[in-house]
Amino acid sequence: MNLRHTQRLFVDAPLATGQNITVTPEQTHYLAHVLRMQVGDALRLFNGRDGEWLGALSHVGKKQAALTVQSLLRPQQNAPDIELIAAPIKKAHFDFMLEKVTELGVRHITPLLTQRTQVREVNTERCHAMMVEAAEQSDRLDVPTIGKPEAIASLIAAWRNTRADRTVIVCAEFGDAQPIAEVCQKLAHDTHAVSIITGPEGGFAEDELSALCALPGAHAARLGPRILRADTAAIAALTCWQAMRGDWV
Amino acid sequence: MNLRHTQRLFVDAPLATGQNITVTPEQTHYLAHVLRMQVGDALRLFNGRDGEWLGALSHVGKKQAALTVQSLLRPQQNAPDIELIAAPIKKAHFDFMLEKVTELGVRHITPLLTQRTQVREVNTERCHAMMVEAAEQSDRLDVPTIGKPEAIASLIAAWRNTRADRTVIVCAEFGDAQPIAEVCQKLAHDTHAVSIITGPEGGFAEDELSALCALPGAHAARLGPRILRADTAAIAALTCWQAMRGDWV
Repeated sequence: MNLRHTQRLFVDAPLATGQNITVTPEQTHYLAHVLRMQVGDALRLFNGRDGEWLGALSHVGKKQAALTVQSLLRPQQNAPDIELIAAPIKKAHFDFMLEKVTELGVRHITPLLTQRTQVREVNTERCHAMMVEAAEQSDRLDVPTIGKPEAIASLIAAWRNTRADRTVIVCAEFGDAQPIAEVCQKLAHDTHAVSIITGPEGGFAEDELSALCALPGAHAARLGPRILRADTAAIAALTCWQAMRGDWV
Repeated sequence: MNLRHTQRLFVDAPLATGQNITVTPEQTHYLAHVLRMQVGDALRLFNGRDGEWLGALSHVGKKQAALTVQSLLRPQQNAPDIELIAAPIKKAHFDFMLEKVTELGVRHITPLLTQRTQVREVNTERCHAMMVEAAEQSDRLDVPTIGKPEAIASLIAAWRNTRADRTVIVCAEFGDAQPIAEVCQKLAHDTHAVSIITGPEGGFAEDELSALCALPGAHAARLGPRILRADTAAIAALTCWQAMRGDWV
């Protein structure tokens, strides 16, 4: 049985054989009215903890649907411990970035408020919904998490208590940054978790960049000769790390 | 004088000291009404051939503006010879992809029609406008070109006449593809131009993938353990090549 094209669904409930799960009204609408699924139709289920399970719709009502969990398809596997610390940007581009970094395999996102960050509010519930959808479509078994926006000064002040043991890639447009492939290369035997930091539209202020590059474990990386948008820089840096040091290897 | 934040503008006309250029009605609207620029304001100009020039607005009318070209800022430099052969996808994602691959430094895009390609029309004029905007914002001196959609069978049939001397990276979700970083690594001393091929939503059909992998100079590359959207795959593959073999090194 090839389940490659079987619809995937993220649920909150625990997953185990025989479990009955009621799905949300939004999911009911999607399954019943958009996909026109019927009782007995197969689904692949995941909750970010218990792996991927085969399930089937057991009830389809107007406003509520339910499903029964059948058998384990894949044990739980999480994306590597990669944190993206990125300045929030305008909605369409931020949404797009969330979709891409979920597919590429980020574990956690910390929105970063800098001097030049224009967008200072992040609707984390909405972000979670976007990332659930991207996780469903990309065959992920976990969903990235997103923290509350953090001001750069408090992020740096708290660094030794919160992230002292992490490798840090600071994406920099100026200063003495090395090409990102060289940075990934020289960290070939590094086994630390990684935090990738990217700036806002307009880039970091000079003092911000110096402070970030002075963090323990920090390496400044350059992403080519052109100016990248904030979302492009985040996507590109994550891609390079994943391809050279992460779970693409 | 730091011109880093001086507005850039793509023009068709030849660029040389003293040249007077009339800009398009769309550009007039943008310069005069969106940016509220006035006579004497500085601009950075490029046309994809003559490098980047300093210029200034010499006339701002209701419907037409003109500018005078002053001095050369940077000689012409083109993105490396990288072709992206990618299946067209739905508009918002295709637009996004065009923006990203322009920033990342692609030279030419060939839309590819495969068995599972749903979107079969590409408005090349609209694509050109999108890429001009991305080139203006990313400090590029050239604008990527985009060809007419090509059916996969005729692309393959014409390969030896059109692209025989190119290295080919085929992004594959199945088969015996190597991780993309390994492919880039083993091509370390390869000096050929490169064509990167990515599939449609739903992937290549098996016979399509076999035919692509049998092209002269072809290497099948895998982009990690998750399923990537078509646009994500194109962006990620281009990023890896540029970071490891292209002009980011």
